[in-house]
Amino acid sequence: MFVPKDPDFVNRVRASFARQSVMTTIGATMTAVEPGAVAIELPFRADLCQQHGFLHAGVVATIVDSACGYAALTLMQADAAVLSIEFKANFTAPAAGERFVAQGRVVRAGRTITVCTGEVFAVAADREKSICLMQATMMALGADAGLRD
Amino acid sequence: MFVPKDPDFVNRVRASFARQSVMTTIGATMTAVEPGAVAIELPFRADLCQQHGFLHAGVVATIVDSACGYAALTLMQADAAVLSIEFKANFTAPAAGERFVAQGRVVRAGRTITVCTGEVFAVAADREKSICLMQATMMALGADAGLRD
Amino acid sequence: MFVPKDPDFVNRVRASFARQSVMTTIGATMTAVEPGAVAIELPFRADLCQQHGFLHAGVVATIVDSACGYAALTLMQADAAVLSIEFKANFTAPAAGERFVAQGRVVRAGRTITVCTGEVFAVAADREKSICLMQATMMALGADAGLRD
Amino acid sequence: MFVPKDPDFVNRVRASFARQSVMTTIGATMTAVEPGAVAIELPFRADLCQQHGFLHAGVVATIVDSACGYAALTLMQADAAVLSIEFKANFTAPAAGERFVAQGRVVRAGRTITVCTGEVFAVAADREKSICLMQATMMALGADAGLRD
Repeated sequence: MFVPKDPDFVNRVRASFARQSVMTTIGATMTAVEPGAVAIELPFRADLCQQHGFLHAGVVATIVDSACGYAALTLMQADAAVLSIEFKANFTAPAAGERFVAQGRVVRAGRTITVCTGEVFAVAADREKSICLMQATMMALGADAGLRD
Repeated sequence: MFVPKDPDFVNRVRASFARQSVMTTIGATMTAVEPGAVAIELPFRADLCQQHGFLHAGVVATIVDSACGYAALTLMQADAAVLSIEFKANFTAPAAGERFVAQGRVVRAGRTITVCTGEVFAVAADREKSICLMQATMMALGADAGLRD
Repeated sequence: MFVPKDPDFVNRVRASFARQSVMTTIGATMTAVEPGAVAIELPFRADLCQQHGFLHAGVVATIVDSACGYAALTLMQADAAVLSIEFKANFTAPAAGERFVAQGRVVRAGRTITVCTGEVFAVAADREKSICLMQATMMALGADAGLRD
Repeated sequence: MFVPKDPDFVNRVRASFARQSVMTTIGATMTAVEPGAVAIELPFRADLCQQHGFLHAGVVATIVDSACGYAALTLMQADAAVLSIEFKANFTAPAAGERFVAQGRVVRAGRTITVCTGEVFAVAADREKSICLMQATMMALGADAGLRD
């Protein structure tokens, strides 16, 4: 459905993800990169939780924000940088599971603004449950623009 | 302006924050607890960044979500648990600085639903800059309700 | 997928919609009511526009908020009232068309909180285009609760 | 605090508001235009309500979206058009009152993206109550860009 402007988008997106130090810190990996869609996976860790032992909502937001941002980047020009302008997340169930899969998808790719939806699934031995929905706005910044709007 | 139902709210909120393992992991501390208002501080760390060396938007969201959630909890009954139903964050400047201060404030405290606003400031030697605005909805769960709606 | 608690949900939802005076004022009708899903349609009107002749974003939000709220109400108990706690809308294309179809769907139905997604399509002779995405939080209020949380 | 690029911004904003046909239809007027801030007022009308006789959340969103959009436009260049990319609104009390005052304020004015906060107050003889908080993202489109990103 989407045709990337940069044929080398997979390598470009994976290289950028590798520079997100927080992903290494929390143990998240990028498990899929397609035109307009990215998946990031995070195994449960007891040191990333809130007060009741569930994954912290902010950590959930961290992986799905990156999934949305990189989904947007798959469709941008080779020299563009992507910036999260804003996101909104609903937490629909406690983040309990063995691992968490965040999916980001582009729903509208404009010249400057890309709108994405994201969803996070908690996965355990016997089930997969949706725990978070995101709606996010991403911005493309040209190489000449620096990193500011 | 707000009168806490639980006179021991400071201890209760600080004890709950101490159980948020992710705060220890990223190095965040709770620096203020008042009726309807909480501040959380996070020194910059190179291992919590996105691809351009700024603090990741999700980490910014993590501290301001906790600040909002605990601001809500200051006004809840002694046996209540607080749950982030949803939040929305605008990122208004790159998260560059020596440390980050997240402030959460209650704007409406209902029986079940509390609405909060949050703001994050990046602090460096010579300046303090607003980098994120949040609007969040928190829910009070009774001790008997378990942790589900 | 969803089983309504009230077998008479269609009549109940349609009767409530008929009491939304703003829908009559703008000319919107409810075109579908299913368990967890509602559609509302609005023909274009030149007196509901913003400065460039497109339907005003707030009017778009009005029909999709009602579609989401009534989608939530289809699954609530017969004596419940539904309240929009919050919504977030991304406007992905100008609201240009002959008529607009707003769809609201429940993604999570809790005891108190229901989370919905909404989408609005602009329809013209030769095309149908998505122009708005919504994520909304609805609250069930019991008959005894009055209309306040 | 903000210095408009266009010294004639008041006339320009008021002329644009006059072209928003929906404002005439619902009876809203622009009551203040300052650099980075706009107020819009709407008297209560029984034909703009939801099922319980309160002003519909979408109508509340309509006036505060316009207040935010025009607050953003006060700071844009003379030939720019303003577009609502997205907004998020929390409804903090029922929209009951004799009239409603929506205030929009710029919190961050970038080259392309402007972030605003909005608030709506319900006013009656004896009180003024905050009923809605908005966080909105507005985009500046150049005269040469048409009305699309």
